[in-house]
Amino acid sequence: MRRLKALAECSDEPNGITRPYLGPAHRKAVDLIGTWMTDGGMSPRIDAIGNVIGRYTGIGRDAPLLLIGSHIDSVPNAGMFDGTLGVVTAIEAVSHCHAAGKRFPFAIEVAAFGDEEGSRYPSTLGGSRLLAGIFDDAILDEADARGMTRRASLAAFGCDPKSVAADGHRSERMLGYIEVHIEQGPVLESKGLAVGVVSSINGASRGMVEVRGEGGHAGTIPMRWRQDALCAAAEMILAVERRAQAEEDLVATVGHIEVPGGAVNSVSGLARFTIDVRSPSDHRRQAAIEDLTGELQAVAARRRVAIAMSFGYQAPATPCDARLSNLLADAVRSQGVSPMRLPSGAGHDAMSFRDRAPIAMLFVRCRGGVSHSPLEFASVADIDTAARTLIDFLERLAATT
Amino acid sequence: MRRLKALAECSDEPNGITRPYLGPAHRKAVDLIGTWMTDGGMSPRIDAIGNVIGRYTGIGRDAPLLLIGSHIDSVPNAGMFDGTLGVVTAIEAVSHCHAAGKRFPFAIEVAAFGDEEGSRYPSTLGGSRLLAGIFDDAILDEADARGMTRRASLAAFGCDPKSVAADGHRSERMLGYIEVHIEQGPVLESKGLAVGVVSSINGASRGMVEVRGEGGHAGTIPMRWRQDALCAAAEMILAVERRAQAEEDLVATVGHIEVPGGAVNSVSGLARFTIDVRSPSDHRRQAAIEDLTGELQAVAARRRVAIAMSFGYQAPATPCDARLSNLLADAVRSQGVSPMRLPSGAGHDAMSFRDRAPIAMLFVRCRGGVSHSPLEFASVADIDTAARTLIDFLERLAATT
Repeated sequence: MRRLKALAECSDEPNGITRPYLGPAHRKAVDLIGTWMTDGGMSPRIDAIGNVIGRYTGIGRDAPLLLIGSHIDSVPNAGMFDGTLGVVTAIEAVSHCHAAGKRFPFAIEVAAFGDEEGSRYPSTLGGSRLLAGIFDDAILDEADARGMTRRASLAAFGCDPKSVAADGHRSERMLGYIEVHIEQGPVLESKGLAVGVVSSINGASRGMVEVRGEGGHAGTIPMRWRQDALCAAAEMILAVERRAQAEEDLVATVGHIEVPGGAVNSVSGLARFTIDVRSPSDHRRQAAIEDLTGELQAVAARRRVAIAMSFGYQAPATPCDARLSNLLADAVRSQGVSPMRLPSGAGHDAMSFRDRAPIAMLFVRCRGGVSHSPLEFASVADIDTAARTLIDFLERLAATT
Repeated sequence: MRRLKALAECSDEPNGITRPYLGPAHRKAVDLIGTWMTDGGMSPRIDAIGNVIGRYTGIGRDAPLLLIGSHIDSVPNAGMFDGTLGVVTAIEAVSHCHAAGKRFPFAIEVAAFGDEEGSRYPSTLGGSRLLAGIFDDAILDEADARGMTRRASLAAFGCDPKSVAADGHRSERMLGYIEVHIEQGPVLESKGLAVGVVSSINGASRGMVEVRGEGGHAGTIPMRWRQDALCAAAEMILAVERRAQAEEDLVATVGHIEVPGGAVNSVSGLARFTIDVRSPSDHRRQAAIEDLTGELQAVAARRRVAIAMSFGYQAPATPCDARLSNLLADAVRSQGVSPMRLPSGAGHDAMSFRDRAPIAMLFVRCRGGVSHSPLEFASVADIDTAARTLIDFLERLAATT
């Protein structure tokens, strides 16, 4: 908690926590974390993209690598647990092992990624993608809202963007990638559980629907002749909700709608709304989108309005590794907590490693499911349980490796 | 058509028709109309509020007054028939009688009102309200978007706001108020009728509904725990539509919705939408609002969201006078057109006279029901039918007065 509070002090805004990628507060946080890593027996380095990584040597020259990571950048006006909780817990666990003189048959690297939230540059997960060997050099030319490129920000941060290629191609065998993170949802709280084991990071599709009807005067067009875009959209929104309710672990959301030129005394001729669909299963997500497409087109046809749908963003699901997750579940049980399995609805750095290494994630209960808000809260007792679970997991992993 | 085109040339914007109350184009239109009135045997005057009124003397000193009016101000980027059609048709009808040397046992005044659209000042119908004796002096202090008061605009226009009181109190007995106007809806077109007789100007209620749910992350909140403000609003919008569909001549419209802070990846916590309800019957309009209030509250309760509704604007219905409307229907029939009765969903200057005189209105077919748009269109043949109907009506009224 002391360290979480110290990181919360690193903010580019005087009130609240705002710690964008490669800003002054991020630099301050990187330096703090480097010190804590050194204190905990790790050798820290800052890589080409601004990640700080602390290595805890394993037994033997060819020991494989276990990576434990999360992120230290934040959204504007953030909470103090999102990302940082996982970094601090990992440092705590390794420091504990170091103090006990414990070594493992694998090296451990604790990584504090800098670019998870995507709140400064258009793309996201740049930090973890570098370590996973899938960094796209083209994003170095992305510009932030003030026109400063990622390349220029890295140089100002003290990094050398030219060494991206070297840092991004590591042949070391990876035993796995582990991440501890607050749930950012209400499930663990509702079950009365301090921690839980993530089954899969949900795949997501995001789209936009445009409905074109016939605008007109709200007083003069009889109901039966209307081709009301907003009424059609309302029926579609309920169809999206109903389809998601019909299936466990599927979520589908219409989070925004616009009625351009809408007015109290007009029948709307145009409505645009967003759709976000997520599922642990890519197959079931695609099936849901196909069902929804058909249903929305049927609504449009019945109401004689035109519909245009496009799903511009598609991210596949990242299933967690069964073996690592079972070990994590055993470790949860050893803390006296029933090891619930739950999908992650939000995206995480762990997704970057889906083709590089087996991954596993531990979720920590957060109050009311609230995140990306100063009201975000996880208790000291739950964080303690997470740290102890992680130490227990390391020992179990060592015993089976 | 020549006069309608001449009025269409009076615009404060170079492209399209924009003729706000008391602007230079309005002044130009008033002068044109004054000339036409003089040519048609009427004595024109401009009153304290910028109306131009042409008097056609009746037979006998105590002849009562028949007022025939409509408006010559326009919305921005307007069509060329809304309002002006009624003024030009009335001038045409009286000019025809004058040319034929015809006099009636009633005086006729043709009024071209200047403030029907309410697109410059907050309140509306100021022109017709003065003639109806219900002008509210307080609106002289209303300011337009540039801060110019109605009082100052009147002075610049050449009017004397101080004579409002004198112009507003006329003891003359009114036989009735007649208005010819494009329908601004699609009913006559669908029935294949050139003109129709208005049964009533619908009463209207306008309100705002605010729905408060619980915002959150679109990925992490399972469907069954959501208190989604937009989904609740969608269900309410369909309830509004369904209630209106269930009743002849009732219309109810949700023309605008906002989701403050809405985003593709968020469950919405707040939605606000408008409601517009209109009916020829005040009783049935009130009953519909009571039903809707109950239904919307039930949706809110079932979905565990908070709802706040307010109906800030309430205008009573203005029923048309049976005797005058029957005469108008006879006149329509004399033109070989079946005299359909239909309510007016839009408001008109006629409403100002509801407590002052019997009123009647003649609607003229317009293409596609389109109005407040450059695409607004009424045919020469239909306008001719309207003018002939009006002349026939005057003769029938004379015969029965």
